[in-house]
Order: sequence, then C-alpha cells, then structure tokens
Amino acid sequence: MSLPSLPLADDDRHDILVEGEAALTERQQAETRFWLQVLKVHRLIFDDLNSALLSGAGLSIAKFDVLAQLYRFRDGLSMSELSTNLKVTNGNVSGLIARLQKDGYVTKTVAPGDRRSFRAAITKEGLAVFQKALLLHRGETARKLRNIPLHEIERMASGLKHFSEEIIDSETESAKAAE
Amino acid sequence: MSLPSLPLADDDRHDILVEGEAALTERQQAETRFWLQVLKVHRLIFDDLNSALLSGAGLSIAKFDVLAQLYRFRDGLSMSELSTNLKVTNGNVSGLIARLQKDGYVTKTVAPGDRRSFRAAITKEGLAVFQKALLLHRGETARKLRNIPLHEIERMASGLKHFSEEIIDSETESAKAAE
Repeated sequence: MSLPSLPLADDDRHDILVEGEAALTERQQAETRFWLQVLKVHRLIFDDLNSALLSGAGLSIAKFDVLAQLYRFRDGLSMSELSTNLKVTNGNVSGLIARLQKDGYVTKTVAPGDRRSFRAAITKEGLAVFQKALLLHRGETARKLRNIPLHEIERMASGLKHFSEEIIDSETESAKAAE
Repeated sequence: MSLPSLPLADDDRHDILVEGEAALTERQQAETRFWLQVLKVHRLIFDDLNSALLSGAGLSIAKFDVLAQLYRFRDGLSMSELSTNLKVTNGNVSGLIARLQKDGYVTKTVAPGDRRSFRAAITKEGLAVFQKALLLHRGETARKLRNIPLHEIERMASGLKHFSEEIIDSETESAKAAE
C-alpha cells in the first residue's frame, strides 16, 4: 500500500511541476496536468467519502473494501484469497479481519481439510452495516457530482476506463519485453 | 489525511457497487463507474510513482510534497504556513520536517520576532534531491501514459479540471446555503 500524499495547493503544485527548471514539451505539460487533475479529483472525493463512511457506518474505506469482498463471496474467503483480491499483504488482511471480527461483522473459522488456514465470512451484522455503507457511498458520490450532467459523467468514465486499459496494456508489454 | 484504500479487483468492486441490492438508476451507475475509474487510474500511477521516488531519490511522496513547497518558497516557510499549504495537521508537518532535517534536506530556524515559532528552508542538498525527484516524477508519468496520444491526454486533463471546478463550486454553494 502506498503512503498517503500530502496535497499541495494545486496551483502551487502545478507551477512547480510544470515549470520547473527546464522548459517542458507540450506533451510533458499535458501529462503533468492530467496527473495533477487525477490527484485533485481523487482528493476532492476520497477524503469526504472516507469521513462519510466512518461517521455514518463506523467503517474506514479499508474495512469497507474487505466487507465488499465478503458480501460478494457469501461462503467466505481464505486469508490468501482476500489478500490476492485486495492486492494487499497477508499481514494487513489479518489485521483488518481481526478488527472486523471484534466489531462483530466477520467470523473466522478453520478451513476444512487444512487446520492451519482460516476462512473469513460476513455476519448478519456485517451485511447490515455494509448495506448501510453502500448507501452512504452512493449518496456521497451523487452529492459530489450533482452539478455535472449525466452525459459528461458517462464520457469521463469511459475516457478514464480507456486510460486505465492503455496503462495496463503498456505494463504488460514492458513485462513481456523484459522476459 | 485519509486512510489508504485497499484496492479491490475492479471488476468485483464494480459488480458489488453497481449491482447491490436495489436497482440503480442510469445516473447512479455512471457516477459509480466514474469514481471507480478515478480510483483505478490513481492506483495505477500513484503506487509506482511513490516507489520510483523512494528507490530513485529516497523520498516518499509526502516528503516530495514538502520539498516542493520549500523549493518554491526559497526564503522558507513557517510550520503553520506549510500546514496550511499542504492541508495537513501541524503534527504531521513537524514530523516530516524533522525527518527531512535528519536527511540534511531542510534547516529549521527560530523565526525572527517570535522565539516560539520555527521556519523551515530547503538546503543545497534538498534542492539537488528535489530536482532529481522532479525528473523521476516526469519520467514515471510519461512511462505510464506513453501509449496514449497527446490530444487524448489534453482532453482528459481539461475534462477532469472541469469536474474538480464543479465539485468545488457545489461545495461552496452548500457552505453558503448552510450559513
């Protein structure tokens, strides 16, 4: 997991990163502007979404993400399945599961056939709190985007999807080239 | 500052958040798709950028952001100015400045006229490491977006800028309405 960034006032950050010491090409300027805008939109939504989930449902986004997995896989998941799906370390998953268990939202059982490994499953209380959090999540997203017309949201969602696909494709190419 | 999110495999997360229990309107689906794509692009760039800065210049993004401020304001900044500009608590700023001072990248002096308050300024070593980090920052952004044509990057940067302006405007309206 990454360290949280310290957000700079964006205009300052833009000046520093775009101007810098040497003249930047048009492409470098566009790349930097794009990335700073991703950071800005992310920050404008993420912090308030996290606060809304915490104050309304007592869940951090990290806990919310674990419950989302267990909400989808009602038969439960092993620690290593959770770790893979969430792309975080086993240690982090274990810590989150222990805290969710203490909250009463998750049960942990020994996996049948392998006494050393644990499976986690969502409880009735966990389902209820997750559903509450899901509504808060939707409400907060809707509140943030309320001034923006639907067609613009759809256009930007598709545009960003295209970007993430291109970024993933370019990483796959690099990985192949390095083989 | 927000807690780091645990990234879900995005398709899973999309299913959970978009389908849920109740039928979603077209708008709710678009809002959720937009936000999940912001998270995805952010994650695809942020983690590797942080690693590149750490391994190439020994700076976390948090330290990088503090140095960026002190790079811009060469006469130095007080702890409270840094705290305001970076939108983080005084405690966090003090911790970061202490660590940067230990690295030799920052000096801390008593502010003239107020013996209780401190000013931080960037050192020659700090300038050098920040310039190195700036090149890494640009290189990493360029690498991530290398498959995407310039006009698309420009279009998305402008689109996201419009979104962040609309989000900020809607918050200002809410704040006024609450007065």
